[in-house]
Amino acid sequence: MGQESGAYRALDAHLDSILPPERQTLGNSVIPTLLSSIGCISTILRHAHSVSQVGSSNAFGDEQLNVDVLCEKAVRDALTQCPSIVTASSEEDPVERPVQGETTTDKSQSPPQRSGETYTIAFDPLDGSSIIAANWTIGTIIGIWTVTRLFTKIHAKARSRRFLAFADREPVQLSPFVCRNGRRKVILNTDIRFTPEASVKTRYFAPANLRAAASDSKYLALVNHHIKEQYTLRYSGGLVPDVVHMLVKGHGVFINPVSKASKPKLRKLYELFPVALVIECAGGKAVNADDGEPVLNQEVADVEERGGFVCGTSEEVDFVVKTLVRGESIS
Amino acid sequence: MGQESGAYRALDAHLDSILPPERQTLGNSVIPTLLSSIGCISTILRHAHSVSQVGSSNAFGDEQLNVDVLCEKAVRDALTQCPSIVTASSEEDPVERPVQGETTTDKSQSPPQRSGETYTIAFDPLDGSSIIAANWTIGTIIGIWTVTRLFTKIHAKARSRRFLAFADREPVQLSPFVCRNGRRKVILNTDIRFTPEASVKTRYFAPANLRAAASDSKYLALVNHHIKEQYTLRYSGGLVPDVVHMLVKGHGVFINPVSKASKPKLRKLYELFPVALVIECAGGKAVNADDGEPVLNQEVADVEERGGFVCGTSEEVDFVVKTLVRGESIS
Repeated sequence: MGQESGAYRALDAHLDSILPPERQTLGNSVIPTLLSSIGCISTILRHAHSVSQVGSSNAFGDEQLNVDVLCEKAVRDALTQCPSIVTASSEEDPVERPVQGETTTDKSQSPPQRSGETYTIAFDPLDGSSIIAANWTIGTIIGIWTVTRLFTKIHAKARSRRFLAFADREPVQLSPFVCRNGRRKVILNTDIRFTPEASVKTRYFAPANLRAAASDSKYLALVNHHIKEQYTLRYSGGLVPDVVHMLVKGHGVFINPVSKASKPKLRKLYELFPVALVIECAGGKAVNADDGEPVLNQEVADVEERGGFVCGTSEEVDFVVKTLVRGESIS
Repeated sequence: MGQESGAYRALDAHLDSILPPERQTLGNSVIPTLLSSIGCISTILRHAHSVSQVGSSNAFGDEQLNVDVLCEKAVRDALTQCPSIVTASSEEDPVERPVQGETTTDKSQSPPQRSGETYTIAFDPLDGSSIIAANWTIGTIIGIWTVTRLFTKIHAKARSRRFLAFADREPVQLSPFVCRNGRRKVILNTDIRFTPEASVKTRYFAPANLRAAASDSKYLALVNHHIKEQYTLRYSGGLVPDVVHMLVKGHGVFINPVSKASKPKLRKLYELFPVALVIECAGGKAVNADDGEPVLNQEVADVEERGGFVCGTSEEVDFVVKTLVRGESIS
């Protein structure tokens, strides 16, 4: 606990130094509270002696696990501690609803926004349900948007004012945690950077949705290219661990193509936008797998929207776009 | 803690029911103590706020991490609590030495072997050093041999009397933990079984050392076969998590071939024998990648010996042996 408290104090000081005065509540309330909720998730997972389906499913039709439900609740409980968080939605409960109304039926007690700051949160409490039973590393993705509602008359713009958190199982320690303040991009953990191409020693690749290569000759050729060029394979099948691996190693390319036979699974709001911002802040690229355009240039009109995804070391992403998206042959 | 204590009490009762009277100390001292040491390793890893090289290397020339050293010590400390553990060696300190002499210089206090049981331990305290910095799942492998010394005049036989433990990061919970009592093989976690071929729904493959496929056309053809047959890829690069994944999912094949260009890395004593026994006990197969023979039919004459490895669902292993080892073409 002592070490963790120290880490949070260091975080407070760091946030103070990088956030503008009008984002004071973000630094002293929203971000620390959300990170604490990730600490709660770690504890929940350590004490969950089994992982089982609870018989319900979320709005996307995914079957829910006992730990999905518990971790969703951990974040929701944390949100109610921050009056400036006005609305929230999650992959487990993807309807943007008022946060504070969840704990009080007395509408007159709606939070006074003394700070004037208002946020909406879009989060995926447990990313990696396909590998959690095997006790592999999973993660939590939290996007913090500097608006009251994302889905009003106009579409939410991914490149609008926005801050986000993104963390693997242990908070603070290894979390690539990012703030984006207007044009300034700040990575809290400054160790998290992609290595410059010239000094890369080991090249990594993570071919997601590899079954798609059975019917997509371009993807199959691309995978064979990486094998022949002796890239090292690391692919857990969880978005957070696969991305964290690249960030910690300083190199890698994560390839999740789309095809007619294999529909995209990754949701823009809860997965792609937050991860894309982290990747960009670390000096990498994150693009759609269908048109090669930056993910952060997109809009999102609905919680349901999904997309293919390529991210990682810029040069590697460019190569994938050239061959997989534009169809140039691999020499 | 309450739940964990309960789990250990259940383990005690289960061990009592399956172990013969002459293995009483194994059940009430050796195995519980070793599992506790895995619990200590979990705690060490949770509190290690960074992973760093300590400047030393083990006898195999691998650079040691701070956590390697701490986890090695956790197991060594546990061993001194069990007088019937006479000798031990580990991947971090691969010399078979007396255990009890490590805590006392007074030779007269050598442990009285009241139970008559003597064991030697061969363990890998942290399997997965290439992925630990990314906070991926890693594991501990412990082999318990029912002899005083493994390396005397005769070679140690892998199919001799032997018990072993094998666990991923959280003890008891998901650990496939195996006892072999003469011809009886007992899996403590009875959920851990490979699924019968006819009822397999999702097929998994884990192609280790994939860079070898750049120069090995048979391996490249095999990987492309798995892609075309739409197997699901899961490959962490850690032996314990990759094997645990197969055991929990009930299906999979882990392929780690050898070639002239890529020397084998996995050590028989600290990795292959224990894992092969777990796989066999769960109803699978574990064979050498060079001759296709069962790993457990081998002898080992030195701590240094290594080998290629194929393990998992029996039918999948047979297919790999047919194509990769015997060179039959894939139709």
